[in-house]
Amino acid sequence: MKFPNKYLRNLRPYKLASHKVWQVNPEERQKVLKLDWNEATVPPTPLVKEMVQKLIDEPMFFNLYPSTFNEHLIELLSKYVGLPKENLQYFGSSDLLHEYICKVFISVGDPVLILGPSYDNFRLTCQANGANVYWSNYTDDFKFDKENFESDIRKIEPAVVYICNPNNPTGHVHTVDYIKYLLDEHSDTLFLIDEAYQEFSGVTAKNLVLEYDNILISRTMSKAFALANFRVGYLIASKDNVQFINRIRNPKNLTTFAQTATIAALTDVEYMNNYTKEVNLAKCWFKEKLETLFSKKMKPYESAGNFIMIEFPSYNEKMSLLQFLAENNIFVRDCTQGYSVRKCFRITIGTKKQMEIVLNVMMKYYAI
Amino acid sequence: MKFPNKYLRNLRPYKLASHKVWQVNPEERQKVLKLDWNEATVPPTPLVKEMVQKLIDEPMFFNLYPSTFNEHLIELLSKYVGLPKENLQYFGSSDLLHEYICKVFISVGDPVLILGPSYDNFRLTCQANGANVYWSNYTDDFKFDKENFESDIRKIEPAVVYICNPNNPTGHVHTVDYIKYLLDEHSDTLFLIDEAYQEFSGVTAKNLVLEYDNILISRTMSKAFALANFRVGYLIASKDNVQFINRIRNPKNLTTFAQTATIAALTDVEYMNNYTKEVNLAKCWFKEKLETLFSKKMKPYESAGNFIMIEFPSYNEKMSLLQFLAENNIFVRDCTQGYSVRKCFRITIGTKKQMEIVLNVMMKYYAI
Repeated sequence: MKFPNKYLRNLRPYKLASHKVWQVNPEERQKVLKLDWNEATVPPTPLVKEMVQKLIDEPMFFNLYPSTFNEHLIELLSKYVGLPKENLQYFGSSDLLHEYICKVFISVGDPVLILGPSYDNFRLTCQANGANVYWSNYTDDFKFDKENFESDIRKIEPAVVYICNPNNPTGHVHTVDYIKYLLDEHSDTLFLIDEAYQEFSGVTAKNLVLEYDNILISRTMSKAFALANFRVGYLIASKDNVQFINRIRNPKNLTTFAQTATIAALTDVEYMNNYTKEVNLAKCWFKEKLETLFSKKMKPYESAGNFIMIEFPSYNEKMSLLQFLAENNIFVRDCTQGYSVRKCFRITIGTKKQMEIVLNVMMKYYAI
Repeated sequence: MKFPNKYLRNLRPYKLASHKVWQVNPEERQKVLKLDWNEATVPPTPLVKEMVQKLIDEPMFFNLYPSTFNEHLIELLSKYVGLPKENLQYFGSSDLLHEYICKVFISVGDPVLILGPSYDNFRLTCQANGANVYWSNYTDDFKFDKENFESDIRKIEPAVVYICNPNNPTGHVHTVDYIKYLLDEHSDTLFLIDEAYQEFSGVTAKNLVLEYDNILISRTMSKAFALANFRVGYLIASKDNVQFINRIRNPKNLTTFAQTATIAALTDVEYMNNYTKEVNLAKCWFKEKLETLFSKKMKPYESAGNFIMIEFPSYNEKMSLLQFLAENNIFVRDCTQGYSVRKCFRITIGTKKQMEIVLNVMMKYYAI
């Protein structure tokens, strides 16, 4: 007797990257350069620790379910995003938001089109909800092929098209004009724009939700705002779409710690802005160094996120460097989404000081 | 153009209870007796605060995704439950575990049978996943009707039968022998036993997962362990069933705060045991007082959980007392699951001292 339903029998799980940082003691943790999950490489604004500490000193609340509606949090989000409160909703991670989106907008058997290679957890979420996932792929050298993509949309007639913008791991970013064009051109298709890395690119389609109901935007507090541990994401969408999702959203899911940390981070947006500027400068510097020093060893791709994807002449050369970096406590992300990225890894960009450490280890590896 | 899929169009949302405690400042919060969500009415073991404080004093981890596999936590769970690690898995709330269960074991259109009235959020989770929900009901005076229930199982042939044990809000508890009998008798049917209140009843079907694969048990750290704010639940099931769910489980979902608090609580099980004993004594005392003092005004039902359901002669009489209690900062839960409970509310049982406060306000209301 086997209970699991039919679309789960052959499901390929989301592949988890190494996570050694939690296997060492807290002091050792600081020696690890965790550049594998695109987290911020620095702590969030000190206001987070301060407000979390204040929370703990308050009369005990651990035994109570968290507030199911934090108006202050929604107001700060509204101010930060620059859109009315009714166009926003927070969730216990953007992964969880993606779950709700699949539930509300996808029926079993519906086709979903992912512009890939991309964030693989969304593929799993779709398949776990019974969708048929199709890919429209970047070219072999990771360029966007407009004709091919739009022909795939027409051919597959997907219920949802997923575009990660900027895209993880390739780094490509679409303009707002192009997204607007897609919404007009394919007005019966729902586009989910994953803006997890939006703060690094500065490009956002957020204003389109005021005009269009075939766009949903997911965002996260895990990247630029440095709150990955708290698991907070949010939705930007038309009022109607926010309300559809609210009908099944579990409002207990965001703990008071997470609510407080988000409020703290949104109270000091300047701190985040400074960090994204620093990362973007370090990214240019690091990419240029790779191109100068290792021009025959690897090819780093242009990226609008806090990461770059690097391609190597062969799979073995990639794995060899990846392992050497790991031995030196530098963790990068092996790209495993398919054949096209088999010779690539993705490295999160941190501060210039952190990237200097990485570069030095690479120079040691190549004996430069 | 309307995107939402067909089974969501007419969905009735889970009705949220009052939550005034988060609208007052932390000092005021202590004056509120929050007896509406069956949370513990006291803080968890002081070890929780201590370990959470220690965590904050560690080098910053806020920017990192939480550990995706906390072996210490699983070991402590295994010790507490008294079953091998392979029969256990933790989740970011039992609500979230229920989501995964629906996804793995229910296909769209499948019938699900709920022994009700019961926890209404599970109904919503099933419907949001496209299941057809049926109820098998307790009798008009909230007794369990074995013949009727089993005839409903045979008639409806559900993919999943949901039994909350002890049942919220009616308080009824099934014996392990009866659950074992159900598993034998309906061996093609999957039974989900929600043991959210198990620590108060002392009755658990947990050992049956070693023999049967048609039983899943969900538990929570939100009730007896007093960790509602952290949103932690866990599954007890056969090794195969745990693995099925692991295929789609998002392992990032439990924050380091939640992992740490759970470890702290499981390190001091005695504290929890003392609390459940205290609640059970207060429950007997309170019920007896109600029966003695207000025999013509209300009927409290026997309960194996940390709550009792009270029935009033009319809906208006219920609402009037409920409002009077609220004016006195005592919040109880209006039962809104349907016609049978329309004259009932549910009150969480706390310590004897807390229940004395409630009783005094009731005496004031009835001018005794």
